[in-house]
Amino acid sequence: MLDFKPVLYILGILLCVLAMFMAVPMVIDIYDGHANGHGFAIAAGLTLFVGSGLALAHRMAVFQISVREGFLLATSAWTVSAIFGALPFLLVVDSLVLTDALFESISGVTTTGSTVVVDLEARSRGFLLWRAILQWLGGIGFIVMAVAVLPVLRVGGMQLFQLEQSAGSRKAFPRVGQIAGAIGGLYVLLTTLCVLALIYVGMNGFDAIAHAMTTIATGGFSTSDASIGGFDNAGIDVVLTVFMILGSMPFILYLRAHKGGEGSLWQDQQVWAFLLTLATCIGVLTLWRLSQEYNLDGWRALREVAFNTVSLMTGTGFTTTNVTHWGAFAVTLLFFLMLTGGCAGSTTCGIKIFRFQIAYAAAACQIRRIMHPRGVFIPYYNRRAVPPEIAEAVMGFIFLFAFSFFALALALTWAGLDFQASMSAAATAIANVGPALGENLGPDDTFAYLPEPAKWLLSFGMLMGRLEIYTALIIMLPRFWRW
Amino acid sequence: MLDFKPVLYILGILLCVLAMFMAVPMVIDIYDGHANGHGFAIAAGLTLFVGSGLALAHRMAVFQISVREGFLLATSAWTVSAIFGALPFLLVVDSLVLTDALFESISGVTTTGSTVVVDLEARSRGFLLWRAILQWLGGIGFIVMAVAVLPVLRVGGMQLFQLEQSAGSRKAFPRVGQIAGAIGGLYVLLTTLCVLALIYVGMNGFDAIAHAMTTIATGGFSTSDASIGGFDNAGIDVVLTVFMILGSMPFILYLRAHKGGEGSLWQDQQVWAFLLTLATCIGVLTLWRLSQEYNLDGWRALREVAFNTVSLMTGTGFTTTNVTHWGAFAVTLLFFLMLTGGCAGSTTCGIKIFRFQIAYAAAACQIRRIMHPRGVFIPYYNRRAVPPEIAEAVMGFIFLFAFSFFALALALTWAGLDFQASMSAAATAIANVGPALGENLGPDDTFAYLPEPAKWLLSFGMLMGRLEIYTALIIMLPRFWRW
Repeated sequence: MLDFKPVLYILGILLCVLAMFMAVPMVIDIYDGHANGHGFAIAAGLTLFVGSGLALAHRMAVFQISVREGFLLATSAWTVSAIFGALPFLLVVDSLVLTDALFESISGVTTTGSTVVVDLEARSRGFLLWRAILQWLGGIGFIVMAVAVLPVLRVGGMQLFQLEQSAGSRKAFPRVGQIAGAIGGLYVLLTTLCVLALIYVGMNGFDAIAHAMTTIATGGFSTSDASIGGFDNAGIDVVLTVFMILGSMPFILYLRAHKGGEGSLWQDQQVWAFLLTLATCIGVLTLWRLSQEYNLDGWRALREVAFNTVSLMTGTGFTTTNVTHWGAFAVTLLFFLMLTGGCAGSTTCGIKIFRFQIAYAAAACQIRRIMHPRGVFIPYYNRRAVPPEIAEAVMGFIFLFAFSFFALALALTWAGLDFQASMSAAATAIANVGPALGENLGPDDTFAYLPEPAKWLLSFGMLMGRLEIYTALIIMLPRFWRW
Repeated sequence: MLDFKPVLYILGILLCVLAMFMAVPMVIDIYDGHANGHGFAIAAGLTLFVGSGLALAHRMAVFQISVREGFLLATSAWTVSAIFGALPFLLVVDSLVLTDALFESISGVTTTGSTVVVDLEARSRGFLLWRAILQWLGGIGFIVMAVAVLPVLRVGGMQLFQLEQSAGSRKAFPRVGQIAGAIGGLYVLLTTLCVLALIYVGMNGFDAIAHAMTTIATGGFSTSDASIGGFDNAGIDVVLTVFMILGSMPFILYLRAHKGGEGSLWQDQQVWAFLLTLATCIGVLTLWRLSQEYNLDGWRALREVAFNTVSLMTGTGFTTTNVTHWGAFAVTLLFFLMLTGGCAGSTTCGIKIFRFQIAYAAAACQIRRIMHPRGVFIPYYNRRAVPPEIAEAVMGFIFLFAFSFFALALALTWAGLDFQASMSAAATAIANVGPALGENLGPDDTFAYLPEPAKWLLSFGMLMGRLEIYTALIIMLPRFWRW
């Protein structure tokens, strides 16, 4: 039987935390003497009211969550935070319409980074900071979910990353609090380091904080309409490139590396494949750029290619130049990298490297089985045998991801977008990247002028992507409610 | 140990058959008094010389083929027929350059239907008939391979269609001759019916024969630059639509239906899903067309949509209008249908319906397993349990297909094509459809003006697609040669 009590209790606490964070832009805008402070105050009050009401009404000293409630909690946590996260956008003086407010908030908490806000430079500091905070909270939220929740829910092969055996189904989430604490500490540490590094290379304090938050979260919201291109500072490009990569690594391995235990960062197959893919693509694209533009400086090409490739593959979505002008080869390669994504257990989205590695191992096994029908072959990942149910789950995930991607792209053409805009907008939404790639809807464009239905479709796609398709799909099944 | 003898023997016989068929356009062009007759005579002589030499040198009364030799035979049969099939294009008076001759021949034997020949109306009847014969032979060749060979090779889940248990691996292909005979008879019958129907609705005898051959083979070569649009005859559209669908059904089920046995056409899950998908998409696209163009006649819209949708989904590739002008929604939907393809055991290519059904059944099973960790769930297809190795093989196939598609699309952008041209040309090649979809490379354009490397890439893609990826991939592995 579905027990809503613990779900509502946790949602209540979540909203209280959200309200607390709304106080930060409120204080800043009041300090700046900007009228937006008022809007943040109302939003924070409303959120706190609903949150504390929920938490108090369903307060429980000890509680356990079943797998089924886990699905409900995961899906509702993202949806509810996105809805309440949109309140400030509706209540500030330069407010957005409902569709845009929800789009921006969903793009925030899912760490996508697509934006419908134009003229960022004219917005209050509180407004800009709130966008960064949404991504920062979304980032840490997803890591905790990926490390502690998804493996237990066995979503798309994530059981591979299960920390340890858990007993009966009512005790499915044993150490969430403990793990969340350690990861949260690391997350704050990385963010702080990024802030300091950004200030060191010349960013002002406010921009450094806002960008550090959206970098570690691989979110991609900027404080400038021109994104990072507006700064035109090689130091900033390098710092952000490094921290985007750090944000795409499996966070749990940082902890293990810190403890010096086995299975640290450098022994992880996923990390190697990720870095190798990045390095290869950066190399190929730099050569491509130099072969296309004869008077281009080599270092400049490398810097631009490295930054934008890392930004798209990690799903951050910062830009320093319009990659559409690099030609169809670059656009197509970046399009595939967007869908690939980073490492599981980080803030990135997309299909993720480990799934390709498992699908490849399984496909290689099949070929061996065809060649030696009497032989026994087992796919390996990280020097461990991959059980058939994980291989199946991974391939099922890739299939569902591809299907959702195609369905979303088709729906977007129906809403009026052209072929390339639909394909790249669907990819950018479902892989939580940020910018689209193309002539009519590219890295230089916001999503502000898209038709209303397209915005709703993309909002839905971002949520589906962040919930790894399965999690959202399951609670849409009538079967789930009869479970 | 790899025994080349039977492989070379069969290739020899294949070439003798090919030479025999070259005599048909030769006779026609000589009868027409066209100088091309000479070229066909030389090509037929050369092919017969090599073929009979191979067959006589490796003649064997009784022979058996292992699975390994089966892979080699399948891959070399398509490659060698394509190479010798290109000879006439090189030797006729209005000859093609080497790249174009090979492209056209590969497009023929793989039943793709992409063409690099312009001004078809100015060509000799022998020239046009040879293109049709290549597709017709490729079609029957593939059905025999799909029914009798691929299931034994266990390629991409095709073992699902294994006819009966075969004993030891040296006796892997027990009834190929018998099955090929029955299917060949049916193939000739369907072609004859199509010829008669086309003549009945007003086509001349020659065009009827040429188009019947490329229709049953779901090939798509036409005798007119404007494809079927040049006839502008509703009767022809209807007849071809019906026979394209007939050509996309599992041929083995026609035989079973004829014998009245169990598992006939109407009980097959694949056939139903195929027809249902077609009907739904035709309905949706007709409504879409009517909503976009207000003064469009309903029947005209239905006729155009039905013909072109069936043509693209079955991988035939005839066109009666430029579907690119139907807008991004139609183009994107048709693009996905191209990749989907028809039923296994027919002349169509693409991923094929049954693989989606099995992937869907497996994904649904996974969701049930997540919800009931202690339950036992088995995916079903055609009222039979799907063993895990088949589900894995199917998902592995879809993964490899997607990967090959993306790699080909990326390579095409490198060769200079734009995003949409690359995506749709890669899809049309690997799914053996025919036309590309887009502004710069669409159904009205031939592939004649593509850069040379793009033509080679597409030729390679067509062969990969026809060999169901796996078959070609396996013999490219060093492992295969050390087997």
